[in-house]
Order: sequence, then structure tokens, then C-alpha cells
Amino acid sequence: MTVIISNRGPYQFKKSNNGFIAQGGAGGIASSLGPLLTSGAAGDSATWIAAALTPDDRAATRAGQVKAPGIELDLLDLDEREYLLAYNLISNSTLWFIYHGIFDLARRPRFDHRFREAWAAYENINQAFANAAAEKANPGDVVLIQDYQLNLVPAMLRSARPDLRIAHFSHTPFCGPNSIRILPPDIARAICGSMASVPSGFHSARWAQSYEASAREMLGSNANITDSFVASLGPDHDLLATTAQLPETAVGRADLKEQIGDRAMILRVDRIDPSKNILRGFSAYQRLLETHPEWRNRVVFVARLNASRQTLPEYIGYRNEVEQAISQLNDEWGTNDWSPIILDERDDFPTTAAAFADYDVLLVNPIKDGLNLVAKEGPLLNQRDGVLCLSPEAGAWDELGVDALSVHPYDIEQVADSLNQALTMEPKERAKRAASLRTRAGARQPIDWLKDQLAAAK
Amino acid sequence: MTVIISNRGPYQFKKSNNGFIAQGGAGGIASSLGPLLTSGAAGDSATWIAAALTPDDRAATRAGQVKAPGIELDLLDLDEREYLLAYNLISNSTLWFIYHGIFDLARRPRFDHRFREAWAAYENINQAFANAAAEKANPGDVVLIQDYQLNLVPAMLRSARPDLRIAHFSHTPFCGPNSIRILPPDIARAICGSMASVPSGFHSARWAQSYEASAREMLGSNANITDSFVASLGPDHDLLATTAQLPETAVGRADLKEQIGDRAMILRVDRIDPSKNILRGFSAYQRLLETHPEWRNRVVFVARLNASRQTLPEYIGYRNEVEQAISQLNDEWGTNDWSPIILDERDDFPTTAAAFADYDVLLVNPIKDGLNLVAKEGPLLNQRDGVLCLSPEAGAWDELGVDALSVHPYDIEQVADSLNQALTMEPKERAKRAASLRTRAGARQPIDWLKDQLAAAK
Repeated sequence: MTVIISNRGPYQFKKSNNGFIAQGGAGGIASSLGPLLTSGAAGDSATWIAAALTPDDRAATRAGQVKAPGIELDLLDLDEREYLLAYNLISNSTLWFIYHGIFDLARRPRFDHRFREAWAAYENINQAFANAAAEKANPGDVVLIQDYQLNLVPAMLRSARPDLRIAHFSHTPFCGPNSIRILPPDIARAICGSMASVPSGFHSARWAQSYEASAREMLGSNANITDSFVASLGPDHDLLATTAQLPETAVGRADLKEQIGDRAMILRVDRIDPSKNILRGFSAYQRLLETHPEWRNRVVFVARLNASRQTLPEYIGYRNEVEQAISQLNDEWGTNDWSPIILDERDDFPTTAAAFADYDVLLVNPIKDGLNLVAKEGPLLNQRDGVLCLSPEAGAWDELGVDALSVHPYDIEQVADSLNQALTMEPKERAKRAASLRTRAGARQPIDWLKDQLAAAK
Repeated sequence: MTVIISNRGPYQFKKSNNGFIAQGGAGGIASSLGPLLTSGAAGDSATWIAAALTPDDRAATRAGQVKAPGIELDLLDLDEREYLLAYNLISNSTLWFIYHGIFDLARRPRFDHRFREAWAAYENINQAFANAAAEKANPGDVVLIQDYQLNLVPAMLRSARPDLRIAHFSHTPFCGPNSIRILPPDIARAICGSMASVPSGFHSARWAQSYEASAREMLGSNANITDSFVASLGPDHDLLATTAQLPETAVGRADLKEQIGDRAMILRVDRIDPSKNILRGFSAYQRLLETHPEWRNRVVFVARLNASRQTLPEYIGYRNEVEQAISQLNDEWGTNDWSPIILDERDDFPTTAAAFADYDVLLVNPIKDGLNLVAKEGPLLNQRDGVLCLSPEAGAWDELGVDALSVHPYDIEQVADSLNQALTMEPKERAKRAASLRTRAGARQPIDWLKDQLAAAK
């Protein structure tokens, strides 16, 4: 049997007249792994352990009615206050910022007694996951632990159940030795020590190397650090093909066509997160309009940006900055019949796929990004030989860099140049790159990534 | 002959009735190296090349009246606009922030066309220094290039004068591979390539390792990277002894005694710089007062903070935050006869030495610091067996950590605990640590550091 452990499960539950209905969950891990596991690709049977996230999830759990097709699902009814402390203050406000290197270090973080309380909650939540897995797993089972919300589970589970084969996979980047030291030493050692007790996987060799150097720094040169592994995720071809055929996708394409007309389309698709570098993307676009007047009224920047983590001050503030930047740019450059930027905050895959189909340029310029699946989904769904402008700081660069135009996350001038280069690229060159991108972006599907984890587990 | 090249020279010039008078310059390098070179410790003769910084410096240079005792001084009358672009925008707003890791990366830096103009200025200024050295140096001379304002001089000078023995020394930390990539690749390669063309020295092995990893990252695994070296600076014993005997120092001690009475004294001495972590130091002090009411009105925090780089927005903003934090803390905790924090913005060594003499606790908690000479000067001048609370992120930690209490730069709670531990330490333990600190802090004088550079030059 294979056991998956992740913060968010493949289904959420909705109360109905006769019990609870399982609905497809959000989030990259769930949507990638869910269909695979229910199809039996991970072996005879699979168990998925995740947190009960909504009141209905909790109610379904308490009623013993957590049932989903083809998979055994175990939702944990965790202490709500502890869960929120761990999720908001440790996972998303601390570890996310350290792994992506986006703390304004002169001012944040500030580890105080409230942080210590949150850290204790993170330990408890991780322990609850480890306990559930230790209870569920049969002797010798494989357990795949997902992501930064569960960094302590590997060591906890290893010590409770030495018979299991375990792997941990980080969907984020990992930081190097100078940055892991930002954490209090006991916490940095606990995280590195836990991850080092099992094979730890990453989307890019760079993150694996940073992790190994950090583990060495915190644990000492004689410590036993299990070899890490690299296994990048790729989009599910069937899901892409199905989505492309949906009526909502066709409607979305027609809507966009009406808004954009025969102008060129630059597209970005991101959660609103400081790591995504949305502000500098707009600055580069502004610079393009300044230095290349021929593009005024000839190009539209479609910004599909969905708000996230809106309980955290950093995210509320960043979202405000993003919305202000859009307003300012539209006010300064827009005309009666041209909005330079169209902001679309919807978070649904069919209309995203519609935008993917017709972009001329896809801008993916993160400060750091574990992989960036958009950089693979876009080229696979695009039908105009669109050009990918990709930051080397995205894990996907390892696979796609050769066919992309590089955009340096901090270099406004260089990104503006790349956008112009992309917009003016000869059709032949576009076609050549796009064909190669399709091959590279489609080379790995979720099953490959899953198999790599299964093979790595020890 | 030995040639020193640094941005700031050992003397500044002041117009007087009959010509120009050389006055001791500010800055760590000048005050450490100046007396040595004029004493002949660097060999028969020494030449120092530096920038003319003031209108009087420039006037003295143009009048051919740059003369100083015991040393040949060459002040460069550089293009003023270029000099300021290079110094403010590249050295202090970019390289300083990258080497110390204190950019708020979601927002800064932003490399645009103005940055490129500043970079061209930095190249030109570096070239002017390299040209001057190439012209001055006799065949086979040793040339010691100082600090981050002159990162490109090594390669320029090496290529102009392959006969010279050259070393470069960084007084800052150096960043690792994940951070050097923040720079545009051509610039990161230019810097690493230049530094790698000569032995590059640092105050701490950690910075040397980070530099080597960064150079490897930017130049490739086959690149020829000259071995780096570690050579920490130490205070000049004679200068300390002389200063301790000055009447101004005695007056300073009496003044402090009057203000503080029999309360305990926590001291910090810093330029106001985000890397110094001044805000979190006050937060920790506040936490001490919250959790240890017995210290209220029993302790005074003497903050000797001198403003610096007040043409740069980051520094103006940070200074405001620092001053606000002090006001708030004094408003909240102060009483009629007790100011919890005394801010002293004077930047003169005799009254600083007075504060060193009588502290109970010296707080040195930088985010990152190349060395931090205060951590050595303090223990050597202190007469109360004061306790050093030192951040492991200061280069001086390598030498002093064993006798200091560690303060983690981001951990408010832990720093508050350390302050309390320092304030309550048994006299015997204090005496033991202080004695050992005096030995360690005094182990190396400027001459040792200079000799290490001379020996390393290649």
C-alpha cells in the first residue's frame, strides 16, 4: 500500500441532504496526485491522510462519512487553533518566506514568545500526521510526505515505524546555509534533521543542493544525511486535453478575443504572492511601452492573478501594491479603446486554459519558485507558438530554459527587452521553440513524478 | 614598495592660510592602516591611492599639495557625478545590500536603465583606481586593494600589470550562490571574475566559503579561482591605551556615571545601518523589561548610534524607525527619574571609549557583519568585566564566540534571555569570561592583518 500525507487532501466535503459529497480539492498536489491514486497507479491501494480544512470536512470526519471513490481517505480533525497557528504563522509566514528568500530581513522575521507558541503547534500538528500514518500503514508500506507544512513528519514517522519506506517531497525551493541560519538553531536543526532522516525530493537540482548544504551546515559534517533526489512534476496530458475541449474554455477564448482584438497578448497566471514577482513584471511592461512606442495599443497584458492567503498581512499588502500598480499603469497609458493590463482574478482552470491557448508571450518571472507548473501547462495548451519568458529562478528552468527567453527577476530593463524580443520573434523561430517546448514540457506527467518518489522512498 | 588602494584615504585635507593641512580620515580601513603605513611597518615605503572626497581634497589635489607625513598619498580627482553614482547606487545601495543579505527582495533591487548607468560609472571609477595603481607601482610591488567599492580593480590591475603581486580584501561579509544571482549575470561574473583573479581575503572563514561558492556558481566549475584567505582585523593596542587616558574620556565616563547612577549599563555602538539590527535589539530590551520587572529603573540602554549614508532613502527610513522605536520605548517605560534608553549620536572615539569602559553588557547583534571591530574594542577597554552578547553572524564570532553569550539576530525572546543572563551573571563567571575575551580580542593587531595580506598577495 502507498500512503500519501499532505496538508490538503484530494477532496473536500460538502454537506448535502443525504450525507456528504466529495468534491475535487484545490491545490497542485491534490489535483496532480488525486486522479493517479484513485486509478490504482500507485499500486493496489492507496491511503491519503490530510487535514480536515472546512467545517463540512470536520463534520464529515466526525460523522465517519469521509468516503471518496477509489481511495481510502483519512481526514484529521485537528485542533483548529493549533492548525491555524501552524499553517499561518509557521508554514506560510516563516518557512515559505525563508525557502523563497523573500523576508525583508532588516524587519522580519521576529521570533518572539508567540512564534514559539506557533512552533509548538507546528510540532503538534506534524505529530498528529505522523501518528495517523503510523497507525494506518501496514508493515513495509511506502509513505510519501508532501511539502513544507509537514517538515517534521519524516523523523517522527521514522522513529515510530522504522519498518516503513518513507520519502519527503518539497514543492518549494530550499534555501542555502546563509538563510537556514535565519531560523533559531534548534528549529533549523529539527527541520534539517527530520528531512535528512529520509530521502528528500525537490523539483530542481538547485534546491536539492541548497538543502544538502543547509543540512550539512546545521547538522555538522559527520551527520547522516540521506541522499536527496530530484523529480520534477509535469502536467496531466488527459486533464489538459479534456479541459481544452470544454465549452467554458471555448467561451473564455471568445471573450478574450473580443477584449483583445488583433493585439498581441502577454499573459501571466499566478497566485498573488511576493515570490511571484508580479510588481517587477508590470514595471518591465511599463518600460516596454516607454521604450517601444510601437507597442502602445498593440499589446494587452492579461494578468490572471488570484488572491491567496488573505489572512496574512504580507499578502494583503502585496495584493494592494499589485492592484495599485495595475491602476497606475492603466491610468497612465490606457486610452478610450485600450486597457494595457486586463486583470482577471478568477481561479478556474477552463478560462485559464482559454488564456493559455492564445497568448503570444507567457511571462513567468518569479523571484524563486519550486517548479512553476504554469510554465509547462502554458506551452502545452498554447496554439499560437507563443514564446515563454522564464526566470532561471523557477525550478522549471532546468527543463525548459533552452527553449525559453531568460528573464532575470530583478532586471527591469532586461525583462522589457525580452518581452520585445518575444513579441517580435520571427514565426519560424517561434514555431521551432514552441515545438521543442511542447516536447520538453510534456516529457513528464504526474505518474513519472509519483514513480520517482516511490522509487526513492527508503 | 606597498601600494594600498581604498575608496577613503587615511587623511582628508583642509584649506588653511598657507596651503592644506592633512587631518586623520574617518573609516575603519584608514584608521587601522594609516598609522601602520606611516610607521614603515609595510616595508621601506608605502603609497596610498584613494579618492579625493571633499572640495578641499579636490583643491589640494589640483594644487599638487597632497602631502602627508611618512606616506606617499595619491588622491584621485574623479568625475564627481560618476563617483556619486558608483558610490551611492552601486557600492552602498546594491553591493552592500547583497553582501549583507538585507534586500527586501519582493520590492528591491530593481535593475533599470539608471542602474546600468551607475554600473558604467562604477566600472569607470574602478578603472581610474586601477590606472593610478598601474602607473604608481614599481615592478614586482605588492598592491592591496580594499573593499566592495573596488571589486573590479583586481582584474583591471592584473591585466595592466601582470608583474604585480595583488590581493583584495573585503571588509563586508560575502553572499552565497543563491544571492549572488540577484545581480545581473554579467555583473555577478565581472565581480566574481575580478576577485577570483587575485587572492581575496575576508575577516571570517564563512565569508570566504560563501565567496568561493558564489565564484564557482558564476564562473563555472572549470574556472580558475585563486585561493581566498582569512585574516581578521584587531584593534590597535596603543591607540586604545592612549584614548583611555585622554581627559575627554575621563569626562565622558563621569558624564555617563551621572546619568546612569548605580544602574546597570547595556551598550551598543553602531552606525545606523539596517545590517546592524538595531530595531530588534530594542525589541529584545523591551521584552526584558516586560518579563523581568526587576530590571525596570535598574538598567539603562546606552545607544551610541551615528547616522550614516543619509543621502540614501533606505538609511533615512531606517534611521526614522530607530528614532521612533527609542521614543516609543522611553514613552512607554520611562519614569521621571529613568530614561530606559539614552541615545547618543556622537561619533567620536574618546566618549565611545568612555562608554566601553563602564558597560555591564555590550550588545552586538548584527544580521550580518564582516567583522565588527566594536566586539573587540569593547572588551579591551572595559573595566567592569562586562559581558559580550554577540551574534554568530558577526565575523568576530569566529574568534570571540567561545567567551560571548550568543544572541540570535532574529530571536527577540532569546536575546532578551541573553541580556538577562548577562545582567545576572555571577562576578566570578564575568571575570573569567572577560579575562579570556581580553586575550582573544587582543590577539591580533592591525599589523597582523596587514602582514597576512602582504603574505597572501600573488
